[in-house]
Amino acid sequence: MSLKPSLEVPAVAGAVEREVVRVRAGQASTSVDHVAAEEPLEIRLAGMSLAVTMRTPGDDEELVAGFLYSERVITHADDLDVIAPYRTSDSDAAAGNVMNVLLARNADVARERLRRNFVASSSCGLCGKVTIDAIRAELPAVVSDLIVPSSIFHRLERSMGRAQATFERTGGLHAAGLFDADGTLIVLREDIGRHNAVDKVVGHMLLSRRMPLDRHILMVSGRASFEIMQKALMARVPIVAAVSAPSSLAVEMAAAADMTLVGFVRPGGFNIYAGAERVNLNAVESR
Amino acid sequence: MSLKPSLEVPAVAGAVEREVVRVRAGQASTSVDHVAAEEPLEIRLAGMSLAVTMRTPGDDEELVAGFLYSERVITHADDLDVIAPYRTSDSDAAAGNVMNVLLARNADVARERLRRNFVASSSCGLCGKVTIDAIRAELPAVVSDLIVPSSIFHRLERSMGRAQATFERTGGLHAAGLFDADGTLIVLREDIGRHNAVDKVVGHMLLSRRMPLDRHILMVSGRASFEIMQKALMARVPIVAAVSAPSSLAVEMAAAADMTLVGFVRPGGFNIYAGAERVNLNAVESR
Repeated sequence: MSLKPSLEVPAVAGAVEREVVRVRAGQASTSVDHVAAEEPLEIRLAGMSLAVTMRTPGDDEELVAGFLYSERVITHADDLDVIAPYRTSDSDAAAGNVMNVLLARNADVARERLRRNFVASSSCGLCGKVTIDAIRAELPAVVSDLIVPSSIFHRLERSMGRAQATFERTGGLHAAGLFDADGTLIVLREDIGRHNAVDKVVGHMLLSRRMPLDRHILMVSGRASFEIMQKALMARVPIVAAVSAPSSLAVEMAAAADMTLVGFVRPGGFNIYAGAERVNLNAVESR
Repeated sequence: MSLKPSLEVPAVAGAVEREVVRVRAGQASTSVDHVAAEEPLEIRLAGMSLAVTMRTPGDDEELVAGFLYSERVITHADDLDVIAPYRTSDSDAAAGNVMNVLLARNADVARERLRRNFVASSSCGLCGKVTIDAIRAELPAVVSDLIVPSSIFHRLERSMGRAQATFERTGGLHAAGLFDADGTLIVLREDIGRHNAVDKVVGHMLLSRRMPLDRHILMVSGRASFEIMQKALMARVPIVAAVSAPSSLAVEMAAAADMTLVGFVRPGGFNIYAGAERVNLNAVESR
């Protein structure tokens, strides 16, 4: 099919408009959806890069102040001499996404504390690869001729639900499931962190020597963020489906890497945010 | 009141049993709830600490393999010579939570890559402070004589819902709200990352010179993890409420730091996981 979501749409506060392919009761139409804005924010201390966080733009001074306070770099508002965005940056894409901080005192102590802390710490999988451009430069797009019938997604969602049943009692675990081209569940892992659940799935396939995953579908409970798409791209997964909403950066990443991104997989239908050509809207499954 | 959740309960796969105070229609009772298990996992490369992630214990070899693959440290199962847990560790608490990896080749390249990447990267707020013991040693418990009527929590939840209305269209944003002792909303921030939303709230109060927050209630959409409790503790918030489930480590942290942790705040009631003495179950609000 030729319906292709467009990429460049102006942002509103906290949300970005995206053209999506809505599939309801097997019928496809294009419409505009709002997705949560996700962009990297780099925090620099006197010009030195200290931390990168994926965040929704807005109230960035507060975010930087609160982050430094939570990390015990500062203890009082007076410790902050300057919090200001770089007016120009290394790339146009990063404009507004780099904040510089000058501390009133003990800057060396704070810097040493941050450095020591951040060396051995990350649960985010970002690792400084903060721009889509940088990732594209390092990683080729996914190549896969996988095409799936549109009816497969609801089946994946039911399959995930059944496999998760034993954990429903906690209400606190994310899940990631890997399916083959026929929609059969290969492995499901649950974790308090969605990125961990995906790492466990990828690790399972790696350790059983079944990489790459270029004929597979990865499904995640909840939302699809940039981080999930990055892990899927590394494993060469062509189709990622999420029970809930994708972020703006997840959509951009999918489009840039020729990946298919499907969101809001529910009994009544789903939305295609990128790579709609891998979804056959005319095919009816035999089972 | 004297109902106190107990702390030490044996774990089952992915979940931990906790005694909680259930409040339904204003009536309190104790019962056992299952909370998602959350514990730190430290990944070491030839004995050197490289990363810490908060995860649900289980399938840790897969997690380590998938993580290293996602971070491009390894590209094949054969790159992994050994993935094994430390049998004994620096502390009993860390037993089973430290995995050592030996690489078959290019270990120096991989180590350099990891080091370079992790220095400038963290969205997790963990910063190597991986044990409750370590945090307790550095941070005193919260001291606050704040006591709130049990009827306040449903009101907070409705207040959050109204304030979030403009963002409901994305389905992809977390929210954190700070309330005063009367249950009046002071500031609400939304972000794709729950930890960012909390940092923005704390940053807002810091920049307006209204710290510490020891007469306040912090409410978060979704789940309450260790990380959220850590940020609340830094800001001296005595009561944290979550719309959804807390993790096991969030509960432990709350109990260790004399904080009150309330979860599953819904129209019909809520659960108290720690610090029930700050909730007055007999008081009826005047409004």
